[in-house]
Amino acid sequence: MPLVKIYAGTKNDVELRAIGDCVHDALVAQANVPADDRFQILNRLDRDLIVAHPSYGDVSRSEDVVIIEITLNAGRTVEIKKKLYADIALRLEGLGVRPDDVLVSLIEVTKENWSFGGGRATYA
Amino acid sequence: MPLVKIYAGTKNDVELRAIGDCVHDALVAQANVPADDRFQILNRLDRDLIVAHPSYGDVSRSEDVVIIEITLNAGRTVEIKKKLYADIALRLEGLGVRPDDVLVSLIEVTKENWSFGGGRATYA
Amino acid sequence: MPLVKIYAGTKNDVELRAIGDCVHDALVAQANVPADDRFQILNRLDRDLIVAHPSYGDVSRSEDVVIIEITLNAGRTVEIKKKLYADIALRLEGLGVRPDDVLVSLIEVTKENWSFGGGRATYA
Repeated sequence: MPLVKIYAGTKNDVELRAIGDCVHDALVAQANVPADDRFQILNRLDRDLIVAHPSYGDVSRSEDVVIIEITLNAGRTVEIKKKLYADIALRLEGLGVRPDDVLVSLIEVTKENWSFGGGRATYA
Repeated sequence: MPLVKIYAGTKNDVELRAIGDCVHDALVAQANVPADDRFQILNRLDRDLIVAHPSYGDVSRSEDVVIIEITLNAGRTVEIKKKLYADIALRLEGLGVRPDDVLVSLIEVTKENWSFGGGRATYA
Repeated sequence: MPLVKIYAGTKNDVELRAIGDCVHDALVAQANVPADDRFQILNRLDRDLIVAHPSYGDVSRSEDVVIIEITLNAGRTVEIKKKLYADIALRLEGLGVRPDDVLVSLIEVTKENWSFGGGRATYA
């Protein structure tokens, strides 16, 4: 059920896929997402088309910023969200993405708001 | 008021417009959307940049998956949402899109959250 | 904390950046957003890939429509939202964008839903 969108201005397709792998693995490990519940839209942008302040949020941000937007069902606790953010950043660091360059935005919805195919409300 | 975003990796512009027609017609028929309330962003992606699990949700999904995200005012019942999903899938089937390849994600907002031009809050 | 996405079919990169400047300035002036809290994704689309009804909402809309989606923390009053819409339209008019061509969509989230880097929940 999470629908993940990833936006980056300095990554190629292979790097975007690897970033997607890490985000999915973190969702499975920290936020109770099934392993086969993977849906991602990877967006390669020109670097001039992503604007990210270099220090807001007490970080040192570069032009290699990766923006990760996750639409998911409401109900995760603050504690789970914190673990998710930390785990995404840790896993991306393994790919050479600096933790300060990882931005995550969650959009929460209700379970009736998804159809994963067949014209059915998957969870309702 | 719905703002519809459609993402596909194997459709051309004409096909994307036709998919948009179907989604709009279903919103009008099932979800009380006025016929002239049509706003859509059609996204043609490389097929490698959409990741969709082949079977999650008890379907058989192909690389021709079409992801439809609809931002709309809260207030539709579960029954209406179910009819909307079914009708979108049915109409897209008429274009040759397999129902199992149709993914719909709804994001609900309040009516003060829209300005459709003129610098005015259209519904507030 | 706002994450701003701008979609336009008839603007070049320089124009998109200038539109982004105006949207950010309006958020700072009207919606209590810090000056350094700027995050924007600018989307240049083919004009055929944006569909916007020519008159819905009592406006006269052209193909130069600019769609602005802002994800932000909940809590702004209707009055603030109205001022924000008016100010965005006014500032964009200074760039030659007609107010009737400015569409704004707000998506509200909770403050735990953001990580602006370092793997931390920035506001929780």
